Amino acid sequence: MTSDPRAGPPAARRTAGGKLLAVLDAFTRERPALTLSDIARDVGVPLSTAHRLVAELCAWGGVERDEDGRYRVGLRVWELGALAPRGLGLREAALPFMEDLYEVTHENVQLAVRDGTDLVFVERIAGRSAVGVLTRVGGRFALPPTGVGLVLLAHAPLEVQEEVLARPLVGYTRHTITDPGQLRRILAEVRRSGVAVSDRQVTGDAVSVAAPVEVRGSVVAALSIVVRGSSPAAVRPYIPGVRAAARGIGRMVALTP
Amino acid sequence: MTSDPRAGPPAARRTAGGKLLAVLDAFTRERPALTLSDIARDVGVPLSTAHRLVAELCAWGGVERDEDGRYRVGLRVWELGALAPRGLGLREAALPFMEDLYEVTHENVQLAVRDGTDLVFVERIAGRSAVGVLTRVGGRFALPPTGVGLVLLAHAPLEVQEEVLARPLVGYTRHTITDPGQLRRILAEVRRSGVAVSDRQVTGDAVSVAAPVEVRGSVVAALSIVVRGSSPAAVRPYIPGVRAAARGIGRMVALTP
Repeated sequence: MTSDPRAGPPAARRTAGGKLLAVLDAFTRERPALTLSDIARDVGVPLSTAHRLVAELCAWGGVERDEDGRYRVGLRVWELGALAPRGLGLREAALPFMEDLYEVTHENVQLAVRDGTDLVFVERIAGRSAVGVLTRVGGRFALPPTGVGLVLLAHAPLEVQEEVLARPLVGYTRHTITDPGQLRRILAEVRRSGVAVSDRQVTGDAVSVAAPVEVRGSVVAALSIVVRGSSPAAVRPYIPGVRAAARGIGRMVALTP
Repeated sequence: MTSDPRAGPPAARRTAGGKLLAVLDAFTRERPALTLSDIARDVGVPLSTAHRLVAELCAWGGVERDEDGRYRVGLRVWELGALAPRGLGLREAALPFMEDLYEVTHENVQLAVRDGTDLVFVERIAGRSAVGVLTRVGGRFALPPTGVGLVLLAHAPLEVQEEVLARPLVGYTRHTITDPGQLRRILAEVRRSGVAVSDRQVTGDAVSVAAPVEVRGSVVAALSIVVRGSSPAAVRPYIPGVRAAARGIGRMVALTP
């Protein structure tokens, strides 16, 4: 569904430092807790090497042992991640605007950034009675079918757009756009209109509208609202709110050192 | 004010992997953006080595170059940190309870975990009109003067308590408890009563009350509410709410795989 987040060729992993990073890469949303054997297999090293690498990461705080003896990502990584301007920094600037938007709509409000040809959800406020969505904070997703993804893709460098358009477009529902020519026209329309609408392209009962978060002329993130609906009309009342909140976030980020 | 989060002796840094981790450690809340020379100096390596280490981290996504050519922590670290059960995992379980507590009080609501002899704030909902607090998500603080810290310290292993009690206790205000014997009595009282109150020990106008988040008999975090006040009586009305929310969070965490 999404591309591999791990950058660089496998050969780059063969440095000692690369092996440490490969241990961290072994942890995923689907497999957040690993045994030493899991890690050895994933990294492609003998058990003794895995033991040494894990010990080094444990001492640093990047990996922690749980009560069942399995390893998990440690608090130190989370703490360092809090310094990432595209992670928690952006989220801190955005949260008050997202909370305001949630207060007046009680629908799902989402914030995402682009990483390569994927998007990563940085924050989400989920309405308890709002339509179900597939997203999780820190989770990755494909760009083309989502409102936030369309905004991020429309403002991505041309080579990123071409890379996405050259690959097969996965259909999640019968409404997902899988024709590259049609997607190309939609991206042009997103750039022109300043908003992107995704009509039941991810799940059969949800429509989203997204707007770009711009900082000094660059689109750094996208904000969306996702509501239950069966046509683009479902999100029409929310367009001014999403656009205004996205602009507010951009203004706030620009103030952050 | 707080101890060094970087574990292990400096010699451990001399492995190739250790040097990579030392580059990440160079980024702090106070210095989130660094030049290559900053990094070389902090890690204690020649510029050419720093260049190679940073290139390896950039390819992985752990470090990103900003528009001014300085380096910052990359999205990949934030994304991995989202897998840390004591970071975002805990935060996702806690946020609904924290939002409920905020809704009914409109005061500051804070969630923290212990890391060694420090605490790390995992989540915070700040009332816009509530009293000012010094905390930031992902930020570290000393255990003894805060409500959450008293809870975490009261339930920490004995050797952690002794280490904290053996060191000088920093006075932030004239109300900060700096006498080890008095702190020892307070910790016993926290274990007995199930709540900790910090009366103007961090700032001169704020009082907090905290309760433990327990999972299968272990205290994994502490939840607090911080209000404007000038005596422990200021937080009395909030005690049942904080205790109930902390129990709810523990129950939710226990359900998480």
